[in-house]
Amino acid sequence: MKYPGYHQSREMSATNESIGFDIPSYMASVGRQARAAGRCLARSGTDVRNEALRGIADTIESSALELKQANRHDLEAGRARGLSSALLDRLTLTDSRIAAMALGLRQIAELPDPVGEVNELKFRPSGIQVGRMRVPLGVIGIIYESRPNVTADAAGLCIKSGNASVLRGGSEAIHSNQAISRCINQGLEQAGLPSDSVQVIETTDRSAVGELLRMVQYIDVIIPRGGKGLIERISQESRIPVIKHLDGICHVYVDDQADLDKAVSIAHNSKTQRYGVCNAMETLLVAQAVAAELLPRLQSLFERDQVELRGCQKTRQLLGNIEPATEQDWSTEYLAPVLSIRVVADMDEAMDHIQTYGSHHTDSIITEDYSKSWRFLREVDSSSVMVNASTRFSDGFEYGLGAEIGISTDKLHVRGPVGLEGLTNQKFVVIGNGNVRQ
Amino acid sequence: MKYPGYHQSREMSATNESIGFDIPSYMASVGRQARAAGRCLARSGTDVRNEALRGIADTIESSALELKQANRHDLEAGRARGLSSALLDRLTLTDSRIAAMALGLRQIAELPDPVGEVNELKFRPSGIQVGRMRVPLGVIGIIYESRPNVTADAAGLCIKSGNASVLRGGSEAIHSNQAISRCINQGLEQAGLPSDSVQVIETTDRSAVGELLRMVQYIDVIIPRGGKGLIERISQESRIPVIKHLDGICHVYVDDQADLDKAVSIAHNSKTQRYGVCNAMETLLVAQAVAAELLPRLQSLFERDQVELRGCQKTRQLLGNIEPATEQDWSTEYLAPVLSIRVVADMDEAMDHIQTYGSHHTDSIITEDYSKSWRFLREVDSSSVMVNASTRFSDGFEYGLGAEIGISTDKLHVRGPVGLEGLTNQKFVVIGNGNVRQ
Repeated sequence: MKYPGYHQSREMSATNESIGFDIPSYMASVGRQARAAGRCLARSGTDVRNEALRGIADTIESSALELKQANRHDLEAGRARGLSSALLDRLTLTDSRIAAMALGLRQIAELPDPVGEVNELKFRPSGIQVGRMRVPLGVIGIIYESRPNVTADAAGLCIKSGNASVLRGGSEAIHSNQAISRCINQGLEQAGLPSDSVQVIETTDRSAVGELLRMVQYIDVIIPRGGKGLIERISQESRIPVIKHLDGICHVYVDDQADLDKAVSIAHNSKTQRYGVCNAMETLLVAQAVAAELLPRLQSLFERDQVELRGCQKTRQLLGNIEPATEQDWSTEYLAPVLSIRVVADMDEAMDHIQTYGSHHTDSIITEDYSKSWRFLREVDSSSVMVNASTRFSDGFEYGLGAEIGISTDKLHVRGPVGLEGLTNQKFVVIGNGNVRQ
Repeated sequence: MKYPGYHQSREMSATNESIGFDIPSYMASVGRQARAAGRCLARSGTDVRNEALRGIADTIESSALELKQANRHDLEAGRARGLSSALLDRLTLTDSRIAAMALGLRQIAELPDPVGEVNELKFRPSGIQVGRMRVPLGVIGIIYESRPNVTADAAGLCIKSGNASVLRGGSEAIHSNQAISRCINQGLEQAGLPSDSVQVIETTDRSAVGELLRMVQYIDVIIPRGGKGLIERISQESRIPVIKHLDGICHVYVDDQADLDKAVSIAHNSKTQRYGVCNAMETLLVAQAVAAELLPRLQSLFERDQVELRGCQKTRQLLGNIEPATEQDWSTEYLAPVLSIRVVADMDEAMDHIQTYGSHHTDSIITEDYSKSWRFLREVDSSSVMVNASTRFSDGFEYGLGAEIGISTDKLHVRGPVGLEGLTNQKFVVIGNGNVRQ
């Protein structure tokens, strides 16, 4: 019991009763403990952190019954509160989801340790040798919504990268998250790491989030995971830097020099391989010269998959019988079987469209033209820019990062899928031999 | 004349008369123009940006008379306002300072272009090839104080790294900065780049800074350069991410396994090579075992240089006749010939002291012990960590970055001296051949 009211608060919050303790002082305790634990984690050996990850995986598996029991409380409360079936599904812990959490942690344990890596120690004329060493960021605050597996995933990535973490899940998952938290703490302690290395906020009181976002002295970065509303609110309110992902308005541009077979399969895959994901195509841009040949081919595929098409005037002339795309459509992330289509004069018009309506997430050109492929790669200012590939590849696992805590559409620190490296930074190291500056 | 009141405002603001135009709409124009210019800059060739830098250097040299004339207005106004002689000195443009500005720009032109560099294109099992491409951040807002040469330096680094910039200098340098701005705009235009690539705010009205710090849609990062007060104010107020440097409370720790000759010269150099700089040592930590031998040697050197010593109790027992260091001293950046000294039991106590009182800037250990050298490098969480070298090396030029826009003591994006690379980020690029996701 490291701060007053700890155990009591867990019980009270978990039953959603009124909070019997002081949120600001509770959060300050969490912050202080995270900072202290972060120092231990940053100094811990690769083997110790990996042992903790495997220990947590084992504990999660052996606690499957308790996890499902805790989860049932959440599901009952959720049904009583009238949560949608989609939300209840996301909230549910099944045996296979529990196994997947454990597997994910073991996979993180297998990844190379980013911490302590030294790049390019170069001698300078002064005689010093200068390089950079990769180091953890410190303490990471993660705010997320209903899926309880995020608790294990996020904790795992933070442990591996040597960062302490403060996790705040959705109130509807509080029992499940607390149960997972107990497995995490046990695994940490068995490996000899402080259990405070991962702290799951024990109260559902919303003011705890406000406190978290102001603790500049204890928290180094905030990562929100969830819907756009959550992320916008957190970005607005946070006094701490935020790594965020707002929209995923992804485009495929089919150039007049495209191989149309590639264009058909990539456009189809980018839209239909999965709908509710940020890297699905939302708008298809087609060069005028190939529109008449390409669009009818795509239309029959999309009709088969019951994808609703909305088009610009030229598209509608070619396809007929589809709804017009409004100005609003170009900046909408459907996350659904809906696609807006626009015919453009050329690549410049396509890039202008992407600049105007895109969200700097993922954009792909389909072309066999060498110069245009490089211009598109260089000039489109998105976190992932592709040639002749499906936007669905924009993903930490597909890119070989081994794991992913999210996708950043920000300009600073990290762009695109954020893996272990994105949870670290590099400091300078100087190897001297008595050198002084002249 | 791209926005209403442009020329008029320059005259009015430069004479410090009341502003005859609307600051929010003026700043919004500046932001829009910067965003548009940034897109051109990001796409421009290496040669074009280098030509602009050399053209600006030429124009600055050939405009030396006009620059000094504009500077005289600032100096007269400054004297009338009773500015200190130190401030007036910083404000003064001499022939040699003008030549140094031009030289600095030519040196930036010689540096390798960071933009467009592609690292490690690796094939993935899916058949796509994934790598990262270095790209500009977009638009950089720089807020600085009296030295007018910062206008040319900052503009040069931003142009080279493909970023548009919005510069807001001190009101006391407004005429000088506007004159330099005219040289910059001329050089940009002659190279065929938009003159809006670099915009120097034309009004001394403080509300312009407030507007700048809220223009999240136009400005991607704010870099404040100046005193701690300025930087704290800007960090508090900014809605845009800030790359900042707060304190430079740098430590040298002399270990019990130190080579004391190296310790003496490094400690002396770290303190006295220059006083008013962020990478000067402010606190010396000495292992108990070598304190009695080391400290008297250092005392005689520091007395010769009239450095005031303040010590912990043990230090005072060894040196006598020096002032006690208070709790306040350990967290003070003197920027002056003052040094606080503390005797510690061992490296762990030294690292605890650095953790408690340091500012994550630059810390150096003097030791011949292999294991301790690596523990110190790994465990001290500062932007520069050194072994057997003077803290004064913590500098972009000394590190070989070629140029420096400042030093970051932040945890995200960039730590330590910020060169061209710190003004860029990496996006993912995917080279495909019709690949779709399974």
